[in-house]
Amino acid sequence: MTTPFAVPELPHPRAHLTSPVTRGALSLQSGLLAAAREFLRDNGFTELLPPIIGPVTDPGNRGAKQVDIDYYGHRYKLMTSAILYKQASLLAFDKIFYVAPNVRLEPVETAGTGRHLTEFHQLDVEVAGASRDDILQLIEDLVRHMARHVVAEHTADLELLGRDPGAFTDLINSAFDRMSHATAVERLHDLGHGQSPDAELDWPGEALLSGKASRPFFVTDYPKGSRGFYDRESREDPGVLRNFDLIAPEGYGELCSGSERESDYARIVARIRETGENPAKYAWYLETAREGIPASSGFGIGLQRLTRYIAGLDAVWQATAFPKLVGTVSP
Amino acid sequence: MTTPFAVPELPHPRAHLTSPVTRGALSLQSGLLAAAREFLRDNGFTELLPPIIGPVTDPGNRGAKQVDIDYYGHRYKLMTSAILYKQASLLAFDKIFYVAPNVRLEPVETAGTGRHLTEFHQLDVEVAGASRDDILQLIEDLVRHMARHVVAEHTADLELLGRDPGAFTDLINSAFDRMSHATAVERLHDLGHGQSPDAELDWPGEALLSGKASRPFFVTDYPKGSRGFYDRESREDPGVLRNFDLIAPEGYGELCSGSERESDYARIVARIRETGENPAKYAWYLETAREGIPASSGFGIGLQRLTRYIAGLDAVWQATAFPKLVGTVSP
Repeated sequence: MTTPFAVPELPHPRAHLTSPVTRGALSLQSGLLAAAREFLRDNGFTELLPPIIGPVTDPGNRGAKQVDIDYYGHRYKLMTSAILYKQASLLAFDKIFYVAPNVRLEPVETAGTGRHLTEFHQLDVEVAGASRDDILQLIEDLVRHMARHVVAEHTADLELLGRDPGAFTDLINSAFDRMSHATAVERLHDLGHGQSPDAELDWPGEALLSGKASRPFFVTDYPKGSRGFYDRESREDPGVLRNFDLIAPEGYGELCSGSERESDYARIVARIRETGENPAKYAWYLETAREGIPASSGFGIGLQRLTRYIAGLDAVWQATAFPKLVGTVSP
Repeated sequence: MTTPFAVPELPHPRAHLTSPVTRGALSLQSGLLAAAREFLRDNGFTELLPPIIGPVTDPGNRGAKQVDIDYYGHRYKLMTSAILYKQASLLAFDKIFYVAPNVRLEPVETAGTGRHLTEFHQLDVEVAGASRDDILQLIEDLVRHMARHVVAEHTADLELLGRDPGAFTDLINSAFDRMSHATAVERLHDLGHGQSPDAELDWPGEALLSGKASRPFFVTDYPKGSRGFYDRESREDPGVLRNFDLIAPEGYGELCSGSERESDYARIVARIRETGENPAKYAWYLETAREGIPASSGFGIGLQRLTRYIAGLDAVWQATAFPKLVGTVSP
């Protein structure tokens, strides 16, 4: 039986791990990671080892469910993202990053998107005192450095994958466009796509914009309610968040999300309440924020998604050694 | 009330993250990681992103309990170690490594050892076709490279921590000693410590030997039954495993465990049965092994433990940004 949410059949681990496509993709991924670390270290960042469990985690994940665990009789969560820890880590260093595994129990509607894994990794970056403009420039420089590195050092992998290095000429040479969410909605309406102005770009809408681009571009200023309480709300333009996504070209879709963060204790509590959650859940985070956490901006790049785009793969599961998809039992 | 297993009281996240000791230790740790990656890449290794959940995980962890999760109605586990995945990953590349988070629900007896975290990270390395001698030499070269790097590049951190770089002179200049488990037991008996010849070195015993050393040393050939089914049993000397630990000097204790691995399907199944487990649990791993996995040797270095030793810290929780200890609720 075919359903609209058909789950792709994953190959057996042996077939997957011995496939030249897997080898090429994973070799490329290790190159992307090495280049990212080089860039971030050269720019004064400290790499920290990420937590993967805790009493609370990021609630803002588009329909995905959190995983509960029993931690000596206490209900803990697997990290859906390390955002709360990134903000707290700025008490130790002004510029930090993690390479952080996350688990999100995605809804079955994501099965056929080619862009969702239930277990994936983020390059998670946070910078004290940075504005959104600062962080967008950092991402552009970082992604450009990573692409330059693989074009120069991973030609054999790209050739094996049938990926033309010319796909990255625009990325390497031209500034990344920036459009607001409102502008993106307008463009989608002009293209005949009924995108809601009050929500995240839906996947078909995102794919439409992505398919028309020749290099990654930013969408900024998402409406409040579409994202987590930690994304800072504009003081000048209430209801609009100081956040952004980076969207890949060629239909590959979202690579990265980020924002200026809310660091004002009273506003954090109010934002948590607005989402219908109980602030008491976030005890350690709020206790820390009450005494002051640095203002910051940051982002998380989906490493399997970035690898998929750079490698030119059909689906994101091809960019991981042991893929896990909604509805599939696999290693 | 004081119990023999008193749990240390952890500082609040703010106090911990703003402490100069924490900053020094985490900065040193980022240097150790950078040096390890440089060494491994220069030696032809590919870094892979580690899985953190799966249908089955490493059973061989000295009394620590595994964490169950509900994965779309299936019972999955958090990784206690990525050993099974490391072996399978050698189907893609001959030399691989992960920086892998693990969760082990340690028994309360470990609360006061200063060496146990319930959430920690391993530098997990596996090499196809390598003998135990090959891998011991690799570890010695790797640890020496890491120590040299921090002595040269992290003098400010060492000074802040009050750690004399002279502590590493022997490590950098002299070969690491190797003694068998049987010899270690004999030495402990000579020292008046009643170590069982059929079990892991107990913690007081390990601390005794560690306290007498001036550089790290290997203990090899642990008795079968003390370790997981994946450690290869000697063909010449049945009952003895082709495995090892690396023990730090100055009383810091175990840093790393590893082994030649069993790659023969029938022997793997027999070893699983000997431990009283049902081989059916390990379906994906055994299906992969039945068609052939490479012979290999490998190891995992506890990154917080290594940091503790290099930084000269009282306890391992000081070497992590968000420490988690048995019996304590913390971020």
